[in-house]
Amino acid sequence: MHAIRKPYLLFLGDVGSDIFAKTAHGLKDWCPDDCVAQWRLPDCSVDLGLQELAPQAAAAAGARSLVIAVAPIGGALPPHWIPAILAGIEAGLDIVSGMHGTLAAVPAIAEAARRKGVALHDVRQAPAGIPIGTGRKRTGRRLLTIGTDCALGKKYTALAIAREMQRQGISATFRATGQTGILIAGGGIPIDAVISDFVAGAAEILSPDAPTDHWDVIEGQGSLFHPAYAAVTLGLIHGSQPDAMILCHEPGRERINGYPDFPVPALTAAIRHFENCAQLTNPAARVVGVSLNTSRLSPEQRAEAIRAAMDETGLPAFDPVATSIADLVRSFAGTLDHAA
Amino acid sequence: MHAIRKPYLLFLGDVGSDIFAKTAHGLKDWCPDDCVAQWRLPDCSVDLGLQELAPQAAAAAGARSLVIAVAPIGGALPPHWIPAILAGIEAGLDIVSGMHGTLAAVPAIAEAARRKGVALHDVRQAPAGIPIGTGRKRTGRRLLTIGTDCALGKKYTALAIAREMQRQGISATFRATGQTGILIAGGGIPIDAVISDFVAGAAEILSPDAPTDHWDVIEGQGSLFHPAYAAVTLGLIHGSQPDAMILCHEPGRERINGYPDFPVPALTAAIRHFENCAQLTNPAARVVGVSLNTSRLSPEQRAEAIRAAMDETGLPAFDPVATSIADLVRSFAGTLDHAA
Repeated sequence: MHAIRKPYLLFLGDVGSDIFAKTAHGLKDWCPDDCVAQWRLPDCSVDLGLQELAPQAAAAAGARSLVIAVAPIGGALPPHWIPAILAGIEAGLDIVSGMHGTLAAVPAIAEAARRKGVALHDVRQAPAGIPIGTGRKRTGRRLLTIGTDCALGKKYTALAIAREMQRQGISATFRATGQTGILIAGGGIPIDAVISDFVAGAAEILSPDAPTDHWDVIEGQGSLFHPAYAAVTLGLIHGSQPDAMILCHEPGRERINGYPDFPVPALTAAIRHFENCAQLTNPAARVVGVSLNTSRLSPEQRAEAIRAAMDETGLPAFDPVATSIADLVRSFAGTLDHAA
Repeated sequence: MHAIRKPYLLFLGDVGSDIFAKTAHGLKDWCPDDCVAQWRLPDCSVDLGLQELAPQAAAAAGARSLVIAVAPIGGALPPHWIPAILAGIEAGLDIVSGMHGTLAAVPAIAEAARRKGVALHDVRQAPAGIPIGTGRKRTGRRLLTIGTDCALGKKYTALAIAREMQRQGISATFRATGQTGILIAGGGIPIDAVISDFVAGAAEILSPDAPTDHWDVIEGQGSLFHPAYAAVTLGLIHGSQPDAMILCHEPGRERINGYPDFPVPALTAAIRHFENCAQLTNPAARVVGVSLNTSRLSPEQRAEAIRAAMDETGLPAFDPVATSIADLVRSFAGTLDHAA
């Protein structure tokens, strides 16, 4: 499993728009205390409002890792960023990248890291040594976010629920399965990069045995209704053995994003299918709430969408950005029966 | 996709038992015309009954590839086999391995192959460049073998059905998803070695567009009821878009092999779940027969098991080793409606 040293110096390169800085904004939103400073090249137009420190100063201020927190066009490391990476290494910082190519594939970076003894983390790459799934029931409680499609709020919902649990004094850990989540958590496994034979096994080691009243809140990926990614989703479900699932959905989205021949399922059909699949490894698995992404709706439409989802499913529905989730967390974290 | 040059020289090393020679026997059973000769080291106690030829003589007799057709203990290439591999390369043969480590990881083999210009095929390794699944419906017809568990006859059933189709004059191609199947077919993709994000995409390119009346008969893997491997199975189903599925089952097996906490499902429950999952990418997907592995049963028990499976499911049931499948193939290949 990736284990990344915090706190971070956020490297923003010279990107020209916040569109390329989603990871940086995610880190600032979800782990601001872990973000010591930002560092930008000339012409960078993104500004997180953090103090501006070069690597040596950031290291002196406590930073342990330099995170490439923006996505360059094309996804590959621009050659003119390499001197900045090398400066980070010289300052003794580990380097963390979510780009497609690996850091170690750049000889100058690999050589400098070896010489200085710093770690290179490619958070899109699966770690080595993942075992085959065992199916063994683990101790502790688990919540997994699931979705009617990709890209509609599974990470955000998991983060919000973990934070609310902690606020209520419930022992909870956010477990990351994608690159931004891994940076926020400081660890995790990019589940869609794992060889298919080992997906369930990866999900098992991601949320190990825990005290009985501890919740692991696991970031979902893909959807069982997605023609390309359902395998990832099923392995994640089976290995996670969730006691509780939160179904994420975007009201008004009628087609799987990028797959116009594939309809987004009805909430009730989705709940039935996810529960049916999840009960293979945890017969107690239940969907306990519906998280709606209502960012494109008016307040009136949002209220109506939430009401409609509750009517359709008989479950609590909410938008984790716009509405409180305190009652939701209280309802299921307090009352579900989690006997193995 | 792997594309291996036939015919083969089957290298048997010095293994001491047929237990380690399943691949060799599978090749001799399913593609005898592709097996030019066997080659053995002193002390080998396996004998396929093929002519005995060293690499130079085998190449002169037409062989194009040397296949390591046995599984050494531990799964790694024994050092004392390396001179034999090098002799194969010197004779101009491609080298084909189903072992865990790659051939190219042995420097002497990599260097010799480069010098002679022969190919090294590691059929456990996924090929590069597999795309994300598209979900696009392809032309032609597809049959996929599925199972209530692993290791109960999915490969054998697919091979037997493809052979029977060809015997009946139906255009049919066996599509391999595991190492032995890939050697038999001379190509394919080891689906469980594919990164999970790409499993459905791999299954899509494995059985491309084909004439309307052509059948691709696809070797299944894993089971939707397996706590470790269901992800592989689901991606293979979604990418295969099967019109017809044959459910493979071993009467009397009550627990998933190696997972005693997990029951083998009832046939009707399995059929319902597989059809439900497969219909995401092919709404016409149906289970059309039940293939029983009755190798541990008496003739009377076999007849009773077949009758019981037919009664339970309302579908044709058979044992592809022990009973004719001619009527089965006639029934579904002739009458199913495959309009997209």
